[in-house]
Order: sequence, then structure tokens, then C-alpha cells
Amino acid sequence: MSMDIKNLFEPKSVALIGSTKIREKVGMTSPELFENVIYNMKKFFKGETIVVDIESKKEYASVTELSTTPELAVIMLPPKESIEQVNICAEKGIKVLVLITGGYKDNQREKLKEIALEYGVRILGPNTIMGVLNTVNGLNTTFERDLMPKNGGIAVISQSGGVGAYLLDWACYNNIGVSKFVFMGDKIDINDMDVLRYLKDDEETRVICIYMEGIEKGREFIEVAREVVKKKPILALKGGITEESALRAKSHTASIAGSDIIFNAAFKKAGIIRVADMEELLNTATAFSKQPLLKGDRIAIVSNVGGPAILAADAITRNGLKLATLSERTRKEIESRHPGVEAINPIDLIADARAERYEHVLDLVLSDPNVDGVMVINMLKSCFFKPEDVRAIVKISKKYPEKPVVDVPAGGEDFAKVYAVLKETEIPAFNLPEKAAKALKALRTYYEIKQKFSSNY
Amino acid sequence: MSMDIKNLFEPKSVALIGSTKIREKVGMTSPELFENVIYNMKKFFKGETIVVDIESKKEYASVTELSTTPELAVIMLPPKESIEQVNICAEKGIKVLVLITGGYKDNQREKLKEIALEYGVRILGPNTIMGVLNTVNGLNTTFERDLMPKNGGIAVISQSGGVGAYLLDWACYNNIGVSKFVFMGDKIDINDMDVLRYLKDDEETRVICIYMEGIEKGREFIEVAREVVKKKPILALKGGITEESALRAKSHTASIAGSDIIFNAAFKKAGIIRVADMEELLNTATAFSKQPLLKGDRIAIVSNVGGPAILAADAITRNGLKLATLSERTRKEIESRHPGVEAINPIDLIADARAERYEHVLDLVLSDPNVDGVMVINMLKSCFFKPEDVRAIVKISKKYPEKPVVDVPAGGEDFAKVYAVLKETEIPAFNLPEKAAKALKALRTYYEIKQKFSSNY
Repeated sequence: MSMDIKNLFEPKSVALIGSTKIREKVGMTSPELFENVIYNMKKFFKGETIVVDIESKKEYASVTELSTTPELAVIMLPPKESIEQVNICAEKGIKVLVLITGGYKDNQREKLKEIALEYGVRILGPNTIMGVLNTVNGLNTTFERDLMPKNGGIAVISQSGGVGAYLLDWACYNNIGVSKFVFMGDKIDINDMDVLRYLKDDEETRVICIYMEGIEKGREFIEVAREVVKKKPILALKGGITEESALRAKSHTASIAGSDIIFNAAFKKAGIIRVADMEELLNTATAFSKQPLLKGDRIAIVSNVGGPAILAADAITRNGLKLATLSERTRKEIESRHPGVEAINPIDLIADARAERYEHVLDLVLSDPNVDGVMVINMLKSCFFKPEDVRAIVKISKKYPEKPVVDVPAGGEDFAKVYAVLKETEIPAFNLPEKAAKALKALRTYYEIKQKFSSNY
Repeated sequence: MSMDIKNLFEPKSVALIGSTKIREKVGMTSPELFENVIYNMKKFFKGETIVVDIESKKEYASVTELSTTPELAVIMLPPKESIEQVNICAEKGIKVLVLITGGYKDNQREKLKEIALEYGVRILGPNTIMGVLNTVNGLNTTFERDLMPKNGGIAVISQSGGVGAYLLDWACYNNIGVSKFVFMGDKIDINDMDVLRYLKDDEETRVICIYMEGIEKGREFIEVAREVVKKKPILALKGGITEESALRAKSHTASIAGSDIIFNAAFKKAGIIRVADMEELLNTATAFSKQPLLKGDRIAIVSNVGGPAILAADAITRNGLKLATLSERTRKEIESRHPGVEAINPIDLIADARAERYEHVLDLVLSDPNVDGVMVINMLKSCFFKPEDVRAIVKISKKYPEKPVVDVPAGGEDFAKVYAVLKETEIPAFNLPEKAAKALKALRTYYEIKQKFSSNY
């Protein structure tokens, strides 16, 4: 079972096996979904896409008709037909298979396991719903037309189709950069550990997000995770923390959701950072994919509005970080250059601050040895700040590659306007100081994990 | 000091007193800001707007020149000139004044207090920055052109200009309905209690949001709040919970931020619901402004995706609510009508659910005596659901005016598409199950507060 799953993400040729006739709603088999996957693959995939329509009389009706052997096959048929196709693919010598549809019974899942063992093929799923994406080679087996995140450093492993679809939609809509995205489904063969091992050495991936409801082989999972987190952080969202929801999770993806306390202990042992919800998962991952780790816990807040800066200070403290005490030199230089600005942390640059004042103050604050990281707040409404002024923050941040900087463009419309500039840069932006504080805290937590695990061999 | 502040919100005529020449950046005095307030008032205000430019040679240069006495004056000048105008307005007989700009020294604030006492005028501010809004009569003293929330049941009291501007921008951008919006500033005269007393009897207001950094006269505040919460809920966000941030709050709005523990105790005694951040404040307020209270703690979750429903179940439990156990009758009716749907809570309607299935199942669930409230989840991506299908939820919810229903349109783009339909309806929508659970919890908490306070006279 330790066979390489490289071709799950990096195949040169992919067979899409489905039907333009069979419709089976509950399990998500339909001619439209088949057409949509074909559309996405032909649009995005840089390798060869081969369409196998088992009902076809003109195109390929079976992989046996192909002159070459595809490196990956994606099967979108009801359970019975899928199992037939798995057999045919295995006979043909295809080594990695993705099973999109759900509705499998226990004995059908057992059958799949048998085939996988017998032929040494690797199977993702069944019930993966959206399958797999790789933003480098354009592999995209989702059936939502044109749904493709931009390339970036975040890998996502989702056990649930629904949570995965939520995260994928959120990532696309908010321009969050993704490396790989994989929907695990029922995990009859390929499991989180296989994917973690692959992602550990994937140069595109800077941070790994996992949504899981249950885990088998807990000890092995912890061991694998411990190896991964020496190289890159793992963030986990666990679903099914209550008895009732755990019961639901069981019927949903056929896994056994363990006790929440056991998971907490396991995550801690594995060096995995646990997050509370889907938004925090992607926010935190964004910070990891764009910014350095936080090497100390002293944060400076630089803002053009008072109230939100006070809420930011509260959030910093609540999340176990500290408000930095600026050095005498920094204070004096800020106050002599900017009359009216009182250089105590949080620093209120006052409503008329524009790029130049932010740039000068941030430069001083980031060079201050008493400061480990910075949260910037900028508001447009009731202030003189303009969206393009945030470029000053991007510029100064680059001068200090060892200290993380996160930004909070305050408000609704204001956030959207500033985010339109920042989303293409290395500065993560969040619409609440509390979200930025949580992201900074994770950058700190992982720094500590890495220190501990690296010395602990 | 108990004089009526009705004309702060409901004046028939308003004098805008500023200058087209004086510019004083730090305190926010500028000809442009003056012009912007004039623009907003002329555009939105249904009463009479009188412009008084103290530098003018053609228009009014003083309220003394006016043949009538305005019911409200808004002064946008630096401290020294503002105090002069306050005197002139008081002499003229204007009874309510709003002081927009900041930068006042202690002795200047004392001077304002003296004038207020001597003439029996009421003063809002100084340092209110954005002043006051009333969505019924169009009163809008903000200097952001065209910034006007839609009419609705949420009143906001913000001590901070920045937090107020954040909340106002968020409300406008997300189409959240506001009744009154007031920026308190330095509170030399009109304070939170005055506004609370007014809002208690304001028929437009269904829920009151307060952002505060400090409070004076704590005992009186608690007494006033206790009276208000017998009629409508008060939600509070407190800034300055740490020693450092409290210090900052002091220099920011000249108030003394008390200890966080004392505030917690005071809020509890006052029957005020404390929220953790600005987003939670508006989310929770939206739920109160649109839905009935939660009379029990048993929540049903109705979803078309499994994973997010499990996270919703987790969030319900984490927030101290319970997952409802559906009655045998409800279960049987759902399962017989919708093959493949297993009617245990959270109910997964499966990916092909559209309006008709939601409508039928919600009707059964809301009529179930074992259910006190419902969280609905709907995803578009990877599902058959269409944005317009949410109208079924709106329709069925109206049949059960005693049970709250909140909706979670899952994802990024998907949320935006569904929210575009829901924002005009009585169904509150949130982009995460955790946010919906917090809103439901607040509907429950206030129900308990109301029960307790009403029996406790």
C-alpha cells in the first residue's frame, strides 16, 4: 500500500470514464456532471485528456481500446459500473484511479479494496465528489465549470465533499493561492497519510490544510504528521466533536469519529495546529503561504483609527501574544517626524495618515528589535487613506523578510477595495483584527512546534 | 441633564456650521468634509438643512442671522471656533448640538460642559467624527458621500469613530437594516444612558448595539440598561480589555476603561449580551432584527451537504444549544417522502435537494414540537440547489413566526449569490455555521434574560 501516488497529482495522461446516458442522482452520476468534468479537464489540464464514454458507439467505450495506458483514470459512474471499470483499468495497467461518485455499500467498498490489493493499484475514494486539483498542471476533476483556484502555496485535504466544496469556492472567490486540492471521500485505499507523505516533498506546497471527521491508524498518522511538520505546517479542522454529530459523520463518510479529547491530544503530539472553523483554516493557511514565522510573541499594531486598534490589542492579548513595547529610539523618531502621533503601541497614525506616514513608521517599527511581528490596520471611511496606499505596506514588509506583517482593511466596502490590491501581494488581509491575531498566533505556534520537533529526533 | 434628546434624531431643521476655508487636519476640520456633510444632508435629509459658513460673505455666516431657530446644529470646526459657535447656538436657543471634530483639551471639554449646564443645551461629542444618522428622516451628518444604510431595526451606539465607521461601512455593504446610528465621541454631555432611554421607546429600533471603551456612572448605566432589556435586547462590544489597550483607550476617547472582569459582571447584571467582535455584533443584531427569540434550546439542522452540517452540529453544541431529536412522526414522513434521506438531525437532504424538498422537510421540522429553532445550510457548488430556491425557506419560515430560522449559504461565491436573494428577506444569512450558531445562541440568551427580568420587578 505504500506505492507512489505521484500520478494522482502529476499524471501526463488522464482517462475520464463516465456515461452520457446513465443518470443516478443520489450518487451524483449524470451526463451533465460527466460533461462538466470533461469541460474542465480540456480547459485547464496541460496533459492529455482521454474521454471514455461507456455508452458511446463512436468514441472510446472502454480503456481497453486505447493504444497507450493513461497514468490516471477518473471514474464517474454508479457503484456497480464503477467497480467494473476499476477492474478493466487495473487489467489495462492504470495504476491510480479516482472514484468520484458515492452511494457505495460496505461489500462494494470491500470489493474495491480487494482489487486495489490484487493489482497494486491506488484508489482515491469512492465518494470523492470533486476528486483532485493541481494548479500547476491544471488537473481538475471537479464538475463545477471553470472552478479553478489560482496557483499558490496552500494544499487542502478534505474528507468531506461539502466542506471541500466550501473551501474551494471560498479560495476561488477570495483569490487564495492553492497548490493541490484533494477530496478524500470514503478512503478505502488512499488515505491522509499517503497524501501527507506526497505533500511533504511537494515544492509547491508551503502549508497543508486537513478537514477530517475520523482517522484510522492513529499512531501511524501521528508519526507521518510529525515528519511533515518538520518541513511545513499542518492545520486541521475536525468535524464531529459531539456524540450526535460523530454519529452523523459515521453515516456520512463511513469513518469512525473519535472522541474530541483524544483528537486534541493526537493533534498536539503530531504537531498539528487545530483551527475552529473553515474560515480560520483558510485565513491561517493564507498567512503561512505568504509570511514568515513569528519568532517571538511581541506584536506592534499600526493603525489609522483608534477604536479598531484597541480591539486589535485586545485580540493580540486574548490569543496569547504580547503588545510590543517600542524602543525609546523608535518612539522618538516617530513622534518627532509625525506631530500629533503618540508612539505607544497600538500606534494610532491618525485619520490623515497616507502611504508616506505608514511607510516611515512601519520601517521604524519593523527594524525595532523589540518587535517580532506587525498587524497593520487601515480604514478608508472617515480617513484620508486610499486603497493604493497599501502598496507602501507591501514594500516595507519586503525589507524585513524575517518578521510577519498582516493587514486588516477595516469595514465592508473598504475591505473589498483594499483587498483588491492586497490579494495579489504577499500581505495577507483579514476583515477583522481578531482574524489577523489568530493568524499571527498560528505563525508563532508553528515556530515553536518546529523548534521542538527539530531538536527532538 | 435629563432633557430630551429627541431632536438629536428627529429634528425638523438642522444648521450645519462649518467653514469653507479653515483646514486643521488632526481634528478633521476641512472644507471638503464640510462640503460632504452638506452633500449628504441635502441628498438624504427630509427636513430643512441650513448651511452656516462662518467665513461666508454671501450665505449665512452665523445662526444669529437666521429668522427661525433650527432644532439641531452640527458644528464642524476646530475646538476654539467650535466653542464660540456653541455659545452662539445656545444664545440663539438651539437645544441640541453635535460636535464633529476632535482634538479638544481637557479645559476645552470643561468649557463645553459649563455652557451645556448654563443654557440647558444638550451636546453630542465632541470628537463624534461621523455624528448621527436616522434612516427614517434621512438625517446623516457623516462626511462620507452617499454612505447611508438601509432602513431596518438595528440601532448602533459607538464610542469610537473608527469602530463606528467600520460598523457603518459593513452595514451598508452588506445591506443590513439600521434604525439609528450615533457616534458618541468624548461624551462630555450626552451619554450612552441618554441614548438608551431614547432608543427604548423608539419604535423603529428592535435591537441596540453598543461599542464602548469605558463607562462612567456604572450603577446608573446598569439600571437604565435593565429597563431597556425588558423591551429590547442590548448587545455590547467592549474595547480595551487589557492594561495596555485600556491605557490606549483612555488617550483615545478620554474615558476610563474599567477592568474586564468588572465589565463582565456589570453586563450580566444589566442583562446586556456581550459579543466578541464587530462581525459578531452585527451578525447577532441582524438575527434579532429579523427573527423571533429562541424559546427552547433544541435546534434542527437542515442541509444539502454532509460535512458543513456536521460542523454546524459541532457549533450548536459548542455554543450551549442542543441538537433536537426529531419526533417519530417527522422522521417517518421525511423518510417516506424522500428516499435516500436519513431523517436524523443534522438532516442531510443530499446534493440533489432543491426548493421543493427543502420546503417539505422544513415544514415538517418547524411543526415538530421537539424543535425550537432551525439552521438551514445550502450549498450551490457540487449540488443542484439554485439561489432562487432559498425563497422556499423564506416562505416556510413565515408560517412559523414563533421559531427562529437562520441560513448558511456555504462558500464564497455561493454565499454571495444566495445572500443577494436573502438580504431583502427576513432570513438572516451567515457564511459559516459557527456564526449562525452564535446568533441562535444570542436569541436564546435574550429570551432567558427577558423572562428573568420581567418576573423580577
